[in-house]
Amino acid sequence: MGSMSNHNSDQLFIGIDGGGTKCRARLVSINEKLLGTGIGGPSNPLHGQAQTKASILQAVEMALTEAGLPNSEASNLIVGIGLAGVNLPSLFDVMNNWHHPFKQMHLTTDLHIACLGAHNRDQGAVMIAGTGSCGYSYVKNKATIIGAHGFPFGDKGSGAWMGLEAVKAVLLASDNLGPYSLLSDLIGNHLQAKGVMIVDRMGAAKASDYAQLARFVLDAADAKDEVAEKIVREGANYMSAVAEKLWETEPSRMSLIGGLSERLTPWLKPSVAASLSAPINQPEFGAIYYAKQQEKLLVC
Amino acid sequence: MGSMSNHNSDQLFIGIDGGGTKCRARLVSINEKLLGTGIGGPSNPLHGQAQTKASILQAVEMALTEAGLPNSEASNLIVGIGLAGVNLPSLFDVMNNWHHPFKQMHLTTDLHIACLGAHNRDQGAVMIAGTGSCGYSYVKNKATIIGAHGFPFGDKGSGAWMGLEAVKAVLLASDNLGPYSLLSDLIGNHLQAKGVMIVDRMGAAKASDYAQLARFVLDAADAKDEVAEKIVREGANYMSAVAEKLWETEPSRMSLIGGLSERLTPWLKPSVAASLSAPINQPEFGAIYYAKQQEKLLVC
Repeated sequence: MGSMSNHNSDQLFIGIDGGGTKCRARLVSINEKLLGTGIGGPSNPLHGQAQTKASILQAVEMALTEAGLPNSEASNLIVGIGLAGVNLPSLFDVMNNWHHPFKQMHLTTDLHIACLGAHNRDQGAVMIAGTGSCGYSYVKNKATIIGAHGFPFGDKGSGAWMGLEAVKAVLLASDNLGPYSLLSDLIGNHLQAKGVMIVDRMGAAKASDYAQLARFVLDAADAKDEVAEKIVREGANYMSAVAEKLWETEPSRMSLIGGLSERLTPWLKPSVAASLSAPINQPEFGAIYYAKQQEKLLVC
Repeated sequence: MGSMSNHNSDQLFIGIDGGGTKCRARLVSINEKLLGTGIGGPSNPLHGQAQTKASILQAVEMALTEAGLPNSEASNLIVGIGLAGVNLPSLFDVMNNWHHPFKQMHLTTDLHIACLGAHNRDQGAVMIAGTGSCGYSYVKNKATIIGAHGFPFGDKGSGAWMGLEAVKAVLLASDNLGPYSLLSDLIGNHLQAKGVMIVDRMGAAKASDYAQLARFVLDAADAKDEVAEKIVREGANYMSAVAEKLWETEPSRMSLIGGLSERLTPWLKPSVAASLSAPINQPEFGAIYYAKQQEKLLVC
């Protein structure tokens, strides 16, 4: 780990937020001036370590290009990275032992950088509802993680979970073993497939592919489709229960973030919905915050 | 397709039953005398076409070896194959266009050969509850398939489905968002893991890996564990509904087959359980039946 004496005023930092669908990078000066942003592919190491590394490098290169810097500049960067999946010790070790091209890499979970970003301080709680789902609080130097188990066995309330539940319901309906509803039409139209052909389309689907279906589940639920309402309500009830567990750790603020946050909030328990604060910054800011913290550039 | 004149009395046939966990081969003379049996690895092309082909060749080679025949004899075999997954047109085409080493290959679904085997005639219905689940009837030259959608979105009541539901429940319990019960102990002991380490163990799990957990779900349900009972009952209710749909097609007989059949039967609706007949022969006999039928050696 470096110390302040290693850093001169032109030291650059990059914050990276890696999730199941994509990877975002934010390149800044030591004074947090934005120099460039980048985006890469899926970066959950649980679903592919090589892909994750490639996605990170892709996002970094794009951010450097936007800043008018050559890719070789990567070797001078101090990088903060938050990744889905690295709450698993084995995945943390694999990613942390990566022979990366950077000057320094500080790895933590996507949850941790989301929390640092949302509250712009090292204390608070977040729930994420995007491709995956989970809850996280960091209070009095203690992290609490709820969920974050990944697809297909965890991530209730997430986009991938909603998509999978929707495919199940649509297939049951196609066998006349469950109700045929608007949801079947919306999913069928999107996939341009019915019945067994849906299986054909989704046969090799990843979490991110299932998550593409979530908006149709929410559309149908908003239109009072009972099959879709049941799915969304079950997911939202889970997220409400996660929020209540997180409040037990006494964070000062809590935010719901991720691609589904706006659409899921109205389905949460009213007391939970009312208890949420808007996130201040995005997770990639939190990743920069983390890198600076680790480099002893911030006093916590 | 061959005609009777192509076959002399030393023509050999092999019947192959390919499923998600393994592949069985039965080598017989034209008079159905057993010459050898073989077993291969997973053979559901939905989860890997190269693996499926390798598993089939492995099972054939083992059967030839048991019969004291060289592997080169494969080129003289007439092969009937029933495979999971080939109810999907794209997978049927891929497997049927295989440049196989046999004299002749007749491909159909695992459901079809299971039905031919279970009833030893070209009419009847079967339900399968093993790694996967589904229902099939063949009556008046019309096939009806219910389910057979595959993991993770279909196959309710199957071993893979039970295993996945169990992992979900155990992870909810590990977050104190669901009841901790005997099921958590049995799954935890088997995996030698708790909480997030279960995710680590199951992170890359396939349907066959989840199916390994089904016996613990059934053990716990038999011991009145409420979490496990809920899973088994939901699966069994689905299979009972499948059976009722199949009876509507008016088959003369129906059988429940597959690795979970004995343990699942007591959980079925009593009227459904009472309506089932014991299967006469195994699916690999049905595959031989199918090959002979296609070669015009049987009158249906």
